[in-house]
Amino acid sequence: MSVLEGLKSTADIKKLNIEELKKLAEEIRAEILDVTAKNGGHLASNLGVVEATIALYYVFDLPTDKLVFDVGHQCYAYKILSGRNERFSTIRTDGGLSGFPDREESEFDSFNTGHAGTSIAAGLGFCMARDKKDESYRVISMVGDGAIVNGLNQEALTAFDEKPKNFIVILNDNGMSISKNRNGFYRFLSKQTTTRGYLRGKRALKKIFGTSFITRVLVRVRDFIKRVTNKTGYFENHGFKYVGVVDGNDIKTMISILNRVKEVAKDKAVFLHIKTTKGKGYEKAEERSDKYHGVGTDLRLDSGKFSVVLGNKLNDIIEKDKNVVAITAGMKDGTGLTAVERINPKNFYDVGIAEEFAVTMAAGMASGGLKPVVAIYSTFMQRAYDQILHDVCLQNLPVVFCLDRAGLVGKDGKTHQGTFDLSFLTHMPNMQVFAPTTLSDFEEILEYALSLNSPVAIRYPKNPEKELPVKSIKDGMWSKFGNGTEVSLLAVGPKALKIALEVMDKDDGVSVYAVRQIKPLSTEILDKIIKTHVITIEENVLIGGVGQQVCAYYSMKNKNVKVDCFGVKDQFTAHGSVDNQLEINQISYKKVIEKINERKSEKHE
Amino acid sequence: MSVLEGLKSTADIKKLNIEELKKLAEEIRAEILDVTAKNGGHLASNLGVVEATIALYYVFDLPTDKLVFDVGHQCYAYKILSGRNERFSTIRTDGGLSGFPDREESEFDSFNTGHAGTSIAAGLGFCMARDKKDESYRVISMVGDGAIVNGLNQEALTAFDEKPKNFIVILNDNGMSISKNRNGFYRFLSKQTTTRGYLRGKRALKKIFGTSFITRVLVRVRDFIKRVTNKTGYFENHGFKYVGVVDGNDIKTMISILNRVKEVAKDKAVFLHIKTTKGKGYEKAEERSDKYHGVGTDLRLDSGKFSVVLGNKLNDIIEKDKNVVAITAGMKDGTGLTAVERINPKNFYDVGIAEEFAVTMAAGMASGGLKPVVAIYSTFMQRAYDQILHDVCLQNLPVVFCLDRAGLVGKDGKTHQGTFDLSFLTHMPNMQVFAPTTLSDFEEILEYALSLNSPVAIRYPKNPEKELPVKSIKDGMWSKFGNGTEVSLLAVGPKALKIALEVMDKDDGVSVYAVRQIKPLSTEILDKIIKTHVITIEENVLIGGVGQQVCAYYSMKNKNVKVDCFGVKDQFTAHGSVDNQLEINQISYKKVIEKINERKSEKHE
Repeated sequence: MSVLEGLKSTADIKKLNIEELKKLAEEIRAEILDVTAKNGGHLASNLGVVEATIALYYVFDLPTDKLVFDVGHQCYAYKILSGRNERFSTIRTDGGLSGFPDREESEFDSFNTGHAGTSIAAGLGFCMARDKKDESYRVISMVGDGAIVNGLNQEALTAFDEKPKNFIVILNDNGMSISKNRNGFYRFLSKQTTTRGYLRGKRALKKIFGTSFITRVLVRVRDFIKRVTNKTGYFENHGFKYVGVVDGNDIKTMISILNRVKEVAKDKAVFLHIKTTKGKGYEKAEERSDKYHGVGTDLRLDSGKFSVVLGNKLNDIIEKDKNVVAITAGMKDGTGLTAVERINPKNFYDVGIAEEFAVTMAAGMASGGLKPVVAIYSTFMQRAYDQILHDVCLQNLPVVFCLDRAGLVGKDGKTHQGTFDLSFLTHMPNMQVFAPTTLSDFEEILEYALSLNSPVAIRYPKNPEKELPVKSIKDGMWSKFGNGTEVSLLAVGPKALKIALEVMDKDDGVSVYAVRQIKPLSTEILDKIIKTHVITIEENVLIGGVGQQVCAYYSMKNKNVKVDCFGVKDQFTAHGSVDNQLEINQISYKKVIEKINERKSEKHE
Repeated sequence: MSVLEGLKSTADIKKLNIEELKKLAEEIRAEILDVTAKNGGHLASNLGVVEATIALYYVFDLPTDKLVFDVGHQCYAYKILSGRNERFSTIRTDGGLSGFPDREESEFDSFNTGHAGTSIAAGLGFCMARDKKDESYRVISMVGDGAIVNGLNQEALTAFDEKPKNFIVILNDNGMSISKNRNGFYRFLSKQTTTRGYLRGKRALKKIFGTSFITRVLVRVRDFIKRVTNKTGYFENHGFKYVGVVDGNDIKTMISILNRVKEVAKDKAVFLHIKTTKGKGYEKAEERSDKYHGVGTDLRLDSGKFSVVLGNKLNDIIEKDKNVVAITAGMKDGTGLTAVERINPKNFYDVGIAEEFAVTMAAGMASGGLKPVVAIYSTFMQRAYDQILHDVCLQNLPVVFCLDRAGLVGKDGKTHQGTFDLSFLTHMPNMQVFAPTTLSDFEEILEYALSLNSPVAIRYPKNPEKELPVKSIKDGMWSKFGNGTEVSLLAVGPKALKIALEVMDKDDGVSVYAVRQIKPLSTEILDKIIKTHVITIEENVLIGGVGQQVCAYYSMKNKNVKVDCFGVKDQFTAHGSVDNQLEINQISYKKVIEKINERKSEKHE
C-alpha cells in the first residue's frame, strides 16, 4: 500500500517519519502529474509546493489553523491530503473538484482564491476575527513571488506597523515569472538570499534562532527575536520577524523551521521566505513525454488563437507606428505578447501581476504621446476597474484594452469567468467596446481601435469557433446574415454567433447580426428591426449587459419591441466544460428556438 | 503691487530673490485662505505645499517638465502660479476652475487626478513615453504620506528594479492622517527622519551630496550616488536614490535641494522625502475666526448627516453584537466612523488609503466570524471593484458596504461623482443593494443588512433632503406615496424622491415609489404597475442603472409597459452646484413633467 492510501486523516501525517514523508511527496507528485496530464491545470506551481504542503500538515493543526493560498493555483497537494484524494481525478471537470480553494468543497479550504494578491489581507482579517472572538488558531498566508508585488498584497504588508501574533506569511519564492520582470521588491527580497545563503537543517536553526535554542525555555523567545534583527529593517518596521531563506523542497528542514516559526509566532508575526523549484519532479514527466505531452499548459502560459493574432498583428502595427506599445501584467504568454517582446522588445512592457499599475502607467504613456495596448484577461481586468474609469476614460486617453478569455472560461471556473466585462466597461463614459467574432474581425478591429484616439476595449474568448462566416467590418460593424423578417438574433462573440447561425439554419424567419461593436450600439440597425422579435445572445451577465441596453433603448424610444435576452445568470458559474456552463446559463440553440416558438404562439393566441 | 500681480509668466518666478519668494508664498497663502473661506475645498493640504510649489516652479521648467500630483487636492498654489490667478476665485463653482488638476483647463495640468495612488504610475508612464519618443523633459510625481501606501503607488514603486532617469518622486510627508493609522511603510520611512534628522541649507547639501559638491564637476555625480547609500537598501533596490528628509516649508532649502536633485536625476531616479506642515499659516486664519469660520472643511474630514447616523447607529448595534466591526480606508471623519473609534475603539479599523485591502481584510474577517461594515465613499469604492466581486460576493460573505457621497457630489466634480455604484454593484451575484431616502430609512436598512448574512451595499448621499415623508421599511421596501393610476415614478435616493413628490403634487395621476431596495427589484410592485407610465429617477449613470433593469424586466416578461428613465448621462459631470449637475443631466421636476405630458399626447394621437 502506498503511504498516501494509508492515511486515514490528516492527523496520520504527523505519525510518518522523514523517509515516509519523502515517499508521500513522490506519490503526490506522481498523482498530480497523472491527473493534470488528463485534465490540464497548473502543473509547475503545484509540483513546487508538495514538500512545503506536507510540512504544513505535519507542523500545524489544519483545518483548525487556517491556511490561505494566494492565487490558489498551488493547492493540489493540499487537496489530495485533505480527504479529497479519491475525487482528485475529477479536478476541473463538470461536478468535480475545483482547481482552486473552495469553501463549499471542504472545511480545509478556509478562503476562496483565484486572483493574485488576496492572501495577506484575508489572513490578517482572519487574525482580527480570531483575536476579537478570543479564539486561538494560527493563520498562515502562502504567497508566491509573482503575487507578493501585487498592490493588494503590498497594502496588506504595509498596513499596520504591528501585525497580529500567530500570523505567518510564507513567501514561496520560485524565482520564475517575476524576476524576469525585474521587479524592485523582488530584487530587494533577493538580497536576503545573497546575504544569508540557503539555510539547511540544524545550521539553519542555529543561524536564525540562536545556538542553544532547543535547550532554552520558550519564555526566552522574545530575546531571540530581538537578537536576530533583519538587516534591512523593512520587515521589522512592518511588524514581522523575517526568517529565510529556507529550502522549501527539503522536507526535513521545512518541518524544523516551521516548528520554530510556530513558536516564534506566539510573540510576533513571521515572514518566512522559502525557495522552491517550480515544476520540481517534472523531469520525470519529460522522460515520458508521450504520456505527459501538453501537461504544462498553465493558465498563464497557454496562448489561444486570439492571443496569437494579437501578438502578430501588434508586431505589424508597430512596424508602421513605433508609438504603439504593448503592456501585460505578468501574462505575456497567455495574452500573446511574447511575440511582441521577441520582435519589438522596446515596445513591450511586462509589469508583473500589477493590473492597476499597468493601466495607470498606460494612461501616463498615452498622456505622453504613446498609443498603449493593455492586454489582460477579462477576469483580471476587473482589478483595474477604477484605473480604467478614473485614469483613462475621464481624460479620454487613447488606450486600447484587450480582454482575453472573455465569456465563460471552462475549467478554471468561477474565479476566472470573464462574464462581467461588458457590464463594467459599457457604463464608462468615452469608452467604446468591441467583441470580434472571428480572428480576421479581431485584426480589423484592433487596427480600427488604434485609429480612434480614445479609450477602446476589445473582448474575446481564448479561441474562435470553427467555420464561422467571415465578413469585413468595413461593410458595417454589425454584419447581417440571412434574410428572415420575423426574428432578429443579435449575437455577441463567436459562441453566440455560432448558436445564432444554427438557429437561422432551422428557421427561415430568422436574421442574424454579429454585434461586434457593443458601445455605442448600432441604433441604425436597432431602428430597422423594430417589427421583428429581437433576441440578444451574449456571454456576459444579463444585468448591465447588451440585452438590457437594447431593451432600454427601445423603451426610451417608446417602441414596443419584443426583446428577449440570453446571457449569464446572476450567479457564479462553476468549473467544467464550456458547453455545460452555457447549458447552466440556458444559452443554447435549443433555448433560443424554444423562446422563438413561445413568442410565436403568444402572437397567435 | 504684490509680487503675485507682478508675475507675467512662470519664467518671472525664476527672477525673484528669496525674500520676494517668501513674500509670494505669503500672498498665495492669503489668497487660498480667502477663496476657500467662500468656496470650501482642501485648505490644509494646499497651505502646506505653497513653498514646495514655488520652489518647483523656480527650479524646473514647467509645463515642459511634467508635474503629476497624487490625489490632486494640493494643486491650488500650482494653479495660482500658472496663469489661473484671476480665475482662482471661481474654483469649485459652476463653470469655474476645478479643485483638481484638469488637462482641459491648462497645459500645466499634465494629468488629471482625484483618487489617491496614481501619481507614480502615471509619472513612470510619462517617462517611458518621453524616452521612447526621444524627448527630454523631466517628470515629477508628488505624493503625500497618506497616498504613498496605496496599493497602486506601491505597485509603481516596486515595479522595475531600475527606474527611468530624470524621474523624481517627491514624498510630501506631513505626518497627518496615515501616521495615526500606524502604517508599517510609514514607520519604515520615518526611520529615515530619525536617523538623519532634518536637513537644512548647506549642511543638508553636504550631508546628502558630499562636502565639495559645488566645486566638483557634474560628471562626478555618479560617485556621489554610490557614496551615499541608503542604509535600508529599499530604495536602491527599487531603482531610486533616496534623498531626505528636507524641510519642505523652507523655500531656500527646497530650491537648493531641488537644484541638486535635478542634477542627480540625470543619472538616476530620485525619491525625495520632504516634511511639510499641513495647514501652515492657518494660525492666522484662526485669529480671525469670524471670517474663516468653516474653512477647514476638507472633503475627507467633512461629515454629512448620513455619516453621523452611520457612526451612532453602529455604536448602538455594536452594543448588542460585539462581532460587528467598522472599517474605513483613511476617511474616518468623512464616513462618520470617528464615533465608533471613540466609543468602541476595539471594533474600529482604519487601514489608511487602501480600499482594496479594506475590502479583502473584511472578507477575511467575515470568514472568521465577524460582521464587518466597510464605509467608503462611492467614488473610492470603485477602487475595490474586484475585491467586492471576487473576495466577498463569490464566497457570499456577510460584509456590509456603506457607500457615502453616492450620486452627484457637487463641488468636487468629475473625479468624485458617486454615479457608477448602482451599475457596478447590481451585476455582482449574491449582492443586495439598497438606497435609503431618509435618515431613519438608513438606520432601519443598516440593521436589516446586518441580519442578512450575505453581501449588502447601501448607497446614500452626504445629506438627506428636507421634509421628505418618513415611512418604515417594515411596510415594504418600496414605499408608495399618492394614489395616481396613470404614472408611476420610481425614485432612488433622497433627491430623486423629492423631485418625484413635487411632480406628484402637480399631477393627480401620479403615484410615487421610494425604491429603497435596488437589488433585487420588487417584481411584485413592478407587476402591479404595468398599466401605468413608469418613470425611473436615479442619481446614477443610465447605462446599467435601475431604469435599464426595469426596462429589461418588462421586456423579458413580454409586458408592453411604457418606461422612461432619468439618470446621469454617459459623460463625466464637472464640478459646481448639485442643482446644476442635475440640470446638466436633465434630472429635474420640469423634465419629468415634460415627459409625462409628451407620453400623454402620444396616447391621444
